[in-house]
Amino acid sequence: MRILGLDPGLAIVGYSVIDYKDKQYNLVASGSIKTPQNEREAKRLLEIYEDVCFLCQKYNPQAASVEKLYFFSNQKTIIGVSQARGVILAALEKNGINTYGYTPIEVKQVITGYGRASKNEVKKYVSLYVNLPHTNLDDTIDSIAIAICHIRSTGINPQFDGV
Amino acid sequence: MRILGLDPGLAIVGYSVIDYKDKQYNLVASGSIKTPQNEREAKRLLEIYEDVCFLCQKYNPQAASVEKLYFFSNQKTIIGVSQARGVILAALEKNGINTYGYTPIEVKQVITGYGRASKNEVKKYVSLYVNLPHTNLDDTIDSIAIAICHIRSTGINPQFDGV
Repeated sequence: MRILGLDPGLAIVGYSVIDYKDKQYNLVASGSIKTPQNEREAKRLLEIYEDVCFLCQKYNPQAASVEKLYFFSNQKTIIGVSQARGVILAALEKNGINTYGYTPIEVKQVITGYGRASKNEVKKYVSLYVNLPHTNLDDTIDSIAIAICHIRSTGINPQFDGV
Repeated sequence: MRILGLDPGLAIVGYSVIDYKDKQYNLVASGSIKTPQNEREAKRLLEIYEDVCFLCQKYNPQAASVEKLYFFSNQKTIIGVSQARGVILAALEKNGINTYGYTPIEVKQVITGYGRASKNEVKKYVSLYVNLPHTNLDDTIDSIAIAICHIRSTGINPQFDGV
């Protein structure tokens, strides 16, 4: 199966495409959608919507795994990140992609076995599954972890429509 | 000028279309976009996106006035409402509509002269501007207040891109 992992944000949306076959994980693509801070919010949101549509059409994933927000995760940015997450979900639905949601704690638990693992620990564990891309961008690494989290959770606790 | 007023929400988006000419306000249309609670979140968000696109195409407003959220307005629903607001802004941008944002306090201040006015007071003042529609839905009344707020603010404090 092919999974699109997405880490929502207004300034940066991390994304990754992972194929899983015969218990092997293959990182097909990864990167980030960046929108300029001096741009109007509505324009930035439309850019994210259209770029997610583009990713769906280019890579044709069977499902998407999108970080689920929760209230106390980041109070300062919760409105902006939620607005970005809204357009991401609408874009996935527009392209007929089923969407699954996992909180950061769920992702860390599944990837490292510990829900409060550090970013470096997550990165180290992610590198056991796939060859890391030439990026140090946390958002991209996080999107890989989110995609792997869904693959590992499928069949056990699919959380379909848990977004 | 013709203004589209929008009160964002996941279950209900209140909307209104107001023409302002020769210091007269005319309520052209008003209503609500409702999405079923038992439906997947991504599908509900796409419905909102597409319905806002439809309103833009049907009524061809010159600008949109959308309630701006702030963190402490409603902590329980802030993620869901923000996600809905994100798709509303993207849909307006897709249709080339300039978007303006006002917080509930700003709207009440402009409409009633008092930033902490009750819902009934807002409704009473709104009825001084336009003939109220046959609805008791707060979201629709609020969307009318938001549209009038923008019309009254234009030229004084336009807040363009204040969303």
